[in-house]
Amino acid sequence: MTFFAPASITAFFSPKISDDPLKSGSTGVGITLSKGVKAELSDDRIRLNGRDFSFPTIELLFEKLGLELKQGLKLESQIPVGCGFGFSGAACLAAAFEINKKMKLKKGYFELTDIVHECEVESRTGLGDVVCQSYGGVVVRKVAGSPSMVKIEKYLFNDDLSFLVIGEIQTSKILRDDEIVQRINRYGEEALKAFLRNPEMENLFRISKEFAVKTGLMDDEVLEIIKDLERQGYLASMVMLGKVVFSNCDVEILKEYGEKTLKARISQVGVVEV
Amino acid sequence: MTFFAPASITAFFSPKISDDPLKSGSTGVGITLSKGVKAELSDDRIRLNGRDFSFPTIELLFEKLGLELKQGLKLESQIPVGCGFGFSGAACLAAAFEINKKMKLKKGYFELTDIVHECEVESRTGLGDVVCQSYGGVVVRKVAGSPSMVKIEKYLFNDDLSFLVIGEIQTSKILRDDEIVQRINRYGEEALKAFLRNPEMENLFRISKEFAVKTGLMDDEVLEIIKDLERQGYLASMVMLGKVVFSNCDVEILKEYGEKTLKARISQVGVVEV
Repeated sequence: MTFFAPASITAFFSPKISDDPLKSGSTGVGITLSKGVKAELSDDRIRLNGRDFSFPTIELLFEKLGLELKQGLKLESQIPVGCGFGFSGAACLAAAFEINKKMKLKKGYFELTDIVHECEVESRTGLGDVVCQSYGGVVVRKVAGSPSMVKIEKYLFNDDLSFLVIGEIQTSKILRDDEIVQRINRYGEEALKAFLRNPEMENLFRISKEFAVKTGLMDDEVLEIIKDLERQGYLASMVMLGKVVFSNCDVEILKEYGEKTLKARISQVGVVEV
Repeated sequence: MTFFAPASITAFFSPKISDDPLKSGSTGVGITLSKGVKAELSDDRIRLNGRDFSFPTIELLFEKLGLELKQGLKLESQIPVGCGFGFSGAACLAAAFEINKKMKLKKGYFELTDIVHECEVESRTGLGDVVCQSYGGVVVRKVAGSPSMVKIEKYLFNDDLSFLVIGEIQTSKILRDDEIVQRINRYGEEALKAFLRNPEMENLFRISKEFAVKTGLMDDEVLEIIKDLERQGYLASMVMLGKVVFSNCDVEILKEYGEKTLKARISQVGVVEV
């Protein structure tokens, strides 16, 4: 037995950073996916899909849980790294629950998810993924914070989604640019209000696309693909933050635009033992 | 497509009633089950497993959602009614999500679960079931309230449970007896602290049994069965509030004590579309 944590994508967001990581995070809307990351303790180093791999967020997690870094961990991921699928959050969540069980730490669900949120905020690898991944579903973060502190609403939308992965965007780089952060905050707040006025999947795609365009996070290449998909009658937007198109079209359609595609369902489930 | 809400049992609890139903409920520990209730709108009356059936909590739900009582609803239940499996909460949750979708009410998960919690508190059919059924898992209600107001912790215990159904207990009758309520409050608080000191399944069984004995809610017939199961090396306690034994033994073992048995897994999932 091991633990699985779901991947998630962000439709739009506003960063909210305070001195306390548990009160930091972001408002906005995330979508929990049926694909994700599994973690299992092993006896030597950290490996991702069979290859040596480590990243600051998981090293911080080991530290916070009192583990030595030479403790090994096998991560199996169904999603790409660094493209806006919340890999670091999902990997650290699965790892935290696995460590908790094997090391008999007896910590609760929200205690563990709060620790992972803290690691994410301190490493600037994510601000809202862990909240979304902890609750499952289409999660609206109305007041930012860790999973136990956040104020959320959620929706049981039940759609299949397809993804076209064009490239990476470094979240931490974006979050260090004050001008972009200001625009993100302004349009993120507007987007949140607009979604809550009409909480439907179609509206979520539309608002997410507007947000990506207005903030300048979407480049012309991505915009052209989305417009093309819309002309064919599909809904599409860009994943925040990855150079990734998500759409309700069949994944075969996206293969016309690039090689790297994947599909997943919206999932209502958070971290589980599998 | 229709909606499924999980059943749940309570291991121990303390009622907390205030003037505001959203701040009322109970503290204690509930266990979400893999079995539950499905609901689907239909064109005439309310039916449960094919038979005419109605109850005040669902009538109140219809009223709060602005539906006429002649609206029909098909309920399919995998659990008995009135025996501590949180039938009324699960049935009303599944119904609320089904009504929300078919009537395009566009309400969120916590908006709907809060409404059902309100109906339960006002009808005195349950105080903590809806919180447990909304979150999934083994749910500790640390501060009482509706799903959006409550303070919880939860645990991903992953056990199979077996149940022996001996008879019903009327929750509303118990909650009207001041002396019992006082005992429940006192021992419920103690049980909560004891569980949080050592949050493990074995401890949950032990504390739940102690609570049922000390409050006087467990009669000799149930106690004898539990002692007998313990002599065979199993863990067992009594469901709050039902004349029902739950145990980690195989369901075949319980068939030696009575005809009406069922089995279910602990489930991490709340309300879902199925």
